[in-house]
Amino acid sequence: MFIGEVVGNAWATRKHPSLKNRRLLLVKPIDPMTGEPAGDAVMAVDGGMESGPGSIVLVVDEGGSARGILQDEAAPVRTVVCAIVDQAACGGKAKKYT
Amino acid sequence: MFIGEVVGNAWATRKHPSLKNRRLLLVKPIDPMTGEPAGDAVMAVDGGMESGPGSIVLVVDEGGSARGILQDEAAPVRTVVCAIVDQAACGGKAKKYT
Amino acid sequence: MFIGEVVGNAWATRKHPSLKNRRLLLVKPIDPMTGEPAGDAVMAVDGGMESGPGSIVLVVDEGGSARGILQDEAAPVRTVVCAIVDQAACGGKAKKYT
Amino acid sequence: MFIGEVVGNAWATRKHPSLKNRRLLLVKPIDPMTGEPAGDAVMAVDGGMESGPGSIVLVVDEGGSARGILQDEAAPVRTVVCAIVDQAACGGKAKKYT
Amino acid sequence: MFIGEVVGNAWATRKHPSLKNRRLLLVKPIDPMTGEPAGDAVMAVDGGMESGPGSIVLVVDEGGSARGILQDEAAPVRTVVCAIVDQAACGGKAKKYT
Repeated sequence: MFIGEVVGNAWATRKHPSLKNRRLLLVKPIDPMTGEPAGDAVMAVDGGMESGPGSIVLVVDEGGSARGILQDEAAPVRTVVCAIVDQAACGGKAKKYT
Repeated sequence: MFIGEVVGNAWATRKHPSLKNRRLLLVKPIDPMTGEPAGDAVMAVDGGMESGPGSIVLVVDEGGSARGILQDEAAPVRTVVCAIVDQAACGGKAKKYT
Repeated sequence: MFIGEVVGNAWATRKHPSLKNRRLLLVKPIDPMTGEPAGDAVMAVDGGMESGPGSIVLVVDEGGSARGILQDEAAPVRTVVCAIVDQAACGGKAKKYT
Repeated sequence: MFIGEVVGNAWATRKHPSLKNRRLLLVKPIDPMTGEPAGDAVMAVDGGMESGPGSIVLVVDEGGSARGILQDEAAPVRTVVCAIVDQAACGGKAKKYT
Repeated sequence: MFIGEVVGNAWATRKHPSLKNRRLLLVKPIDPMTGEPAGDAVMAVDGGMESGPGSIVLVVDEGGSARGILQDEAAPVRTVVCAIVDQAACGGKAKKYT
């Protein structure tokens, strides 16, 4: 599980039926205390959080979780956005995101 | 989940029965905004998308998803192509792939 | 599975219902014999261990385990704290944490 | 999923019963177009392919797949050889392995 | 799956009930032909192999396998020792461990 920033989207006309009406988000992992990028961007599906470019989100990278949050056991997904992060704190300092 | 370009194929005569009639694709992860390579190529199975060399695809790297998309619980697969990417957008710029 | 130090927290108002009342912890992997950082911090959920900043913990990074420890099959989680580490030993030396 | 070359074996007298009569193979990932090593060797179980040192194989690194191919739900395995690769092709070039 | 050397232990008084009476081992991956370290140490649970510091072991890093070998579906584990390695062979050379 990691915190990332939604930096983009992707579109696909031809796709598995379970991905219909699902937003495909490009999420870049960040260091939650600095907001700096911390790894390569991954594709994720929005899990009903209405996240979009600029959102700071909690991402779960595990298939069972991903299918559960979409309530679709047939969905070919592994990575989902399952929370919008408001704030992170570390070593007595806090960083607000919302 | 990542976006990649199908760059090749592999053939195997001797293989697990569940892999019969499945295309074995070599997929290279790309940065979706530049199309540049972004990691080592992996082997993936086409999930009914009719992708082939040159296709820009969405890849899910998780076993349950992979077996679900092939509708074969016995298939020894982990990585499947589950969409053909038309376009990616990031920071106000878009890159078309189809 | 790895040993890490809880270094921070994150808060989210908008989140999947299964994450309600769950502490979102920022955990930094450490070398258990030196206590030195040994990789990038990840987000984890406290599995009833009452861990918090400063705790040295055992982390399991696997979805089935995570949902089991939370006793919630619908929880979108992959990473949980499942023990508070008291001591580590290696090569005849020991390092106490509690 | 990746393509690799079987480079060695390991033997264990004391092992989980599900591993009895299973070959433990040391497999080194390769770039399928050059045959050059492309990562650290992993241990894998032969999934009835009769692969051995020198074989170029398709490896699936996922537990459900591994147990399925061995038809043993109790087997502690994650990595299996599920095909012998005959040929790989990329960018108009082909490399034959059998 | 990888071969490693058990290099240490960890103790935890406060832990998930499924981890009671389980040895928490610190295992360092090794190159099976040289015995040299080949990556960062991980925490693993002994799967009834009675391994301890100095043992050369086969480790499976997958949750379903780990819970199966412990015969405890509720156990928050991902990494288990499932064999004691006697010998490895590669390129006509052998290295004995027991």
